[in-house]
Amino acid sequence: MAYTYEYARPALTVDCVVFGYEASASSLKVLLIRRKLPPFKGDWSLPGGFVQIEESVEAAAMRELKEETGVADVFLEQLYTFGAVERDPRDRVVSVAYYALVSLQRHPLQAATDASDAQWFELLDLPELGFDHAEILNCAIERLRSKIRYEPIGFELLAETFTISQLQRLYEQILEREIDKRNFRKKLLKMDLLIDTGEKETGVAHRAAQLYQFDAQKYQLLKQNGASFEAL
Amino acid sequence: MAYTYEYARPALTVDCVVFGYEASASSLKVLLIRRKLPPFKGDWSLPGGFVQIEESVEAAAMRELKEETGVADVFLEQLYTFGAVERDPRDRVVSVAYYALVSLQRHPLQAATDASDAQWFELLDLPELGFDHAEILNCAIERLRSKIRYEPIGFELLAETFTISQLQRLYEQILEREIDKRNFRKKLLKMDLLIDTGEKETGVAHRAAQLYQFDAQKYQLLKQNGASFEAL
Repeated sequence: MAYTYEYARPALTVDCVVFGYEASASSLKVLLIRRKLPPFKGDWSLPGGFVQIEESVEAAAMRELKEETGVADVFLEQLYTFGAVERDPRDRVVSVAYYALVSLQRHPLQAATDASDAQWFELLDLPELGFDHAEILNCAIERLRSKIRYEPIGFELLAETFTISQLQRLYEQILEREIDKRNFRKKLLKMDLLIDTGEKETGVAHRAAQLYQFDAQKYQLLKQNGASFEAL
Repeated sequence: MAYTYEYARPALTVDCVVFGYEASASSLKVLLIRRKLPPFKGDWSLPGGFVQIEESVEAAAMRELKEETGVADVFLEQLYTFGAVERDPRDRVVSVAYYALVSLQRHPLQAATDASDAQWFELLDLPELGFDHAEILNCAIERLRSKIRYEPIGFELLAETFTISQLQRLYEQILEREIDKRNFRKKLLKMDLLIDTGEKETGVAHRAAQLYQFDAQKYQLLKQNGASFEAL
């Protein structure tokens, strides 16, 4: 332990912004937990907690998410580290934030041991959040908005098969603006990254639309050749 | 101090990847320091150090960069937080990495009190780096490659006025591939974000080319309207 820093150390936490999408209701959601301890006891906040000395920061994020919400097996991508001095009333606490995109159809919320107070909230109807979690959530929304233009991350929020209209409504929810249907369809099909499943959606009142899958393998090849995904 | 984490805390550091560009030599460089203490004593590494309890993480990055290299007044953007358990042989150390882009013409290296061993290295001719700093540097290069396609960050690496050929050579250095001169020029001028200064480069053997400035104000307006910068 020679040569290390002998002075006071900030505490280190992780926070997880998990976005979920319910295609049937065109509803973009985020996973929150109700806090059981002060500060902000009883308030809603992002799932998260302290990094233990023998685990990587990413492992801490996965562990806390699972412990507090039951959600596991999702791809957590690092978002940003929040390091302002006064961001936690308890002590000097620096937090590494992660985010994940899940399909609510593929990842239903499971009740974990201490996850009784985990809940999905619509982004358009959020409770007040503890700490600087509103800022962390905004940072994640900005990242999502910017990434969805150039990377095929929207598909992670949908079921394995989807219609182009469902994909369009997802983009409209995230970007908070209307998108021209014809251009969107044309640009998407031109990239030739959607596999026509040969099946149609069921249980809809309107004319049943074609169901597609995203061709992740083909995208990897295109990407290696310097091509990029541009939906808009 | 009630309710905070009572257990051992990881130490928290910052590391800075500062890219510099020398347009006259088309040379992309990174700023390194020679370590004065173990571990890796005498080796080259990224400038950085421990976060103090009363400063924000970003302030720590600016302070360490200035102390170790004399470089100040640059825009440090957060890159990624490196949190693997074994990344530092001394102790459990988590590091928040930042990166910056500077024009060597606008930011000549100044000798700071303890910066005698700060030096620019060509990216194509790097010494071995201590810790996981090669990984941090690679992460920064990847970020630069991805960002330069969709954001006008290349201009930060050039002098205030530049020729289109200089800009093209910068892109070629960063992307490590040749770019079609005619398409690049056409796409850039079409965005109408370059201000023709009315002046020409001087001291060149070939025919002197037009000098341009980047129109940052106009770009902000375009961005607000949902337009994007696409150089390729």
